[in-house]
Amino acid sequence: MLWQGDHLRLLDQRRLPFEETYIDCRSAGDVAAAIRDLAVRGAPAIGIAAAWGVVLAARQDPAHLDAAFAELRAARPTAVNLMWALDRMAGVRADGADAFAREAQAIQDEDLAANRHMGKLGASLLGHGAGVLTHCNTGSLATAGFGTALGVIRAGYSDGSIARVFAGETRPWLQGARLTMWELLRDGIPAHLIADSAAAHLMKAGDVQWVVVGADRIAANGDTANKIGTYQIAIAARHHGVKFMVVAPSSTIDMSTPDGTAIEIELRSPEEMLSFGGQPTVVAGAKAWNPVFDVTPASLIDVIVTERGIVEKPDAARMKALFGASPVKASTG
Amino acid sequence: MLWQGDHLRLLDQRRLPFEETYIDCRSAGDVAAAIRDLAVRGAPAIGIAAAWGVVLAARQDPAHLDAAFAELRAARPTAVNLMWALDRMAGVRADGADAFAREAQAIQDEDLAANRHMGKLGASLLGHGAGVLTHCNTGSLATAGFGTALGVIRAGYSDGSIARVFAGETRPWLQGARLTMWELLRDGIPAHLIADSAAAHLMKAGDVQWVVVGADRIAANGDTANKIGTYQIAIAARHHGVKFMVVAPSSTIDMSTPDGTAIEIELRSPEEMLSFGGQPTVVAGAKAWNPVFDVTPASLIDVIVTERGIVEKPDAARMKALFGASPVKASTG
Repeated sequence: MLWQGDHLRLLDQRRLPFEETYIDCRSAGDVAAAIRDLAVRGAPAIGIAAAWGVVLAARQDPAHLDAAFAELRAARPTAVNLMWALDRMAGVRADGADAFAREAQAIQDEDLAANRHMGKLGASLLGHGAGVLTHCNTGSLATAGFGTALGVIRAGYSDGSIARVFAGETRPWLQGARLTMWELLRDGIPAHLIADSAAAHLMKAGDVQWVVVGADRIAANGDTANKIGTYQIAIAARHHGVKFMVVAPSSTIDMSTPDGTAIEIELRSPEEMLSFGGQPTVVAGAKAWNPVFDVTPASLIDVIVTERGIVEKPDAARMKALFGASPVKASTG
Repeated sequence: MLWQGDHLRLLDQRRLPFEETYIDCRSAGDVAAAIRDLAVRGAPAIGIAAAWGVVLAARQDPAHLDAAFAELRAARPTAVNLMWALDRMAGVRADGADAFAREAQAIQDEDLAANRHMGKLGASLLGHGAGVLTHCNTGSLATAGFGTALGVIRAGYSDGSIARVFAGETRPWLQGARLTMWELLRDGIPAHLIADSAAAHLMKAGDVQWVVVGADRIAANGDTANKIGTYQIAIAARHHGVKFMVVAPSSTIDMSTPDGTAIEIELRSPEEMLSFGGQPTVVAGAKAWNPVFDVTPASLIDVIVTERGIVEKPDAARMKALFGASPVKASTG
């Protein structure tokens, strides 16, 4: 994601790893569409893109800034980083148009710095030569760079705490297959793709000691919404004594949501489950249920890693001790 | 699957549900290739096809009958029905060539009768108006007809014990998406496709009371090998108090295998995980791990349904009480 001075350039993640196609967003509406259609995805990346969307709206159509905020806010419901970034942007609204650009750049720069710090923090917990399973994509593509869970994997592989990585393919959008495997291969990190359904069998075989995943929203008690399948992996991990780590910047933490039951889970079109690459995979007339996130209860999480520090065995009290209140308080834009 | 008097006609399951293409097998080698390449699949169906493969071998090349038995036996390693059917065929070898055809037809007819009986037995355990999750394909396509787990679903929907069905898509071959959804839609049974990774989230939502699956091999203590992902679903089911039923003819039970650790798990080509519907999904050079079965321990199974009766809370003693010794004893062909 690169701000070009007058527009936002996004690598179209729908076409990776086979085509490196860029989308130039020239309005807040362009950015909202890119978020809705998954051209840009990943909780931190969505927040950063939305911040730049506000910059575009303020320059082009300041009379309708409220509408632009609302459209961006509605683009996807589950990831709270989107709301958090828009709250930060709203917080500098009184400071003039240039303040928007400074704030968007700060959000992007801080995310990258947070990821590098979380990488070290998370890797320090892994021991030596661990096998790690991850899910979805939490790397450079999902953030300002380096990644959250994939940042821990990058840091852990380079310091020897990780020896091998397994990535679930992550149906229906195949973020693990298309994006995570691409990032891992480029970095020379030894990795195998697995079917999402093979995680428990992999754990039984003894090949992984840690599951390391990102998050789209973390409630005040540590309950964590993340890509569909994360919850199932967490249950299997606990069953096998495999440790479970969530890695996310504090912008993912929503202290105003008491627990996971209050998190809205995005349901996307059944079509995403009924076809692939434009080709149907299921007989015409069939129905599908397509929730794209689930909630892993804090009781199944061994540690949450943020740039502010780590929370082991998360619960409401331990979360409050580190995060007290919402990381940034700002009125809604 | 239809014996045509001089050859075996198979519906090519790789092309369903979009093309109904038939393969005519005119030799044991043709049948072995169809099994290896998944043109015919499903543990009971593989056994029946292999039996007809022996008939073809005996007619065409009786001097090399041992080699034909060996080729068929080696076609796939995990499903024991294949070995069981070949053992039955070997058992009538002394009775002349016509005995082979009678035995193959008997194996096919008995499988259909067993499925109808198991359907009633299994459905009687479900209560009323249950939601059911199934995995892979265990219907008419996987058997001589009606199905094992899908037979219970058919019987249960027609008698009111089942109200709704969810089918996991079953990566990498999509047997759930392509085959089970096709069978359910043709029968007018209300069904939704889900991502394999959504099973636990579905259970948490309270929409299923039973998981009903088939089996490729059941060990003497009740440990059950079935399609990859079954084990993960079983762990999630126990976590949520959802009941777990295995439906399989007694030909699936291998009393000579003491427990699941002795079951060979077939690893298939990584290519199956690196593409989707013929299109690559992963960057070139990436690796994949592709075990196509896993083992669900008996401790996670609430009931095993066979045509001989049911085994609740299976263990070695309860299995021995019903199955004593291997269902059919015969020398290896």
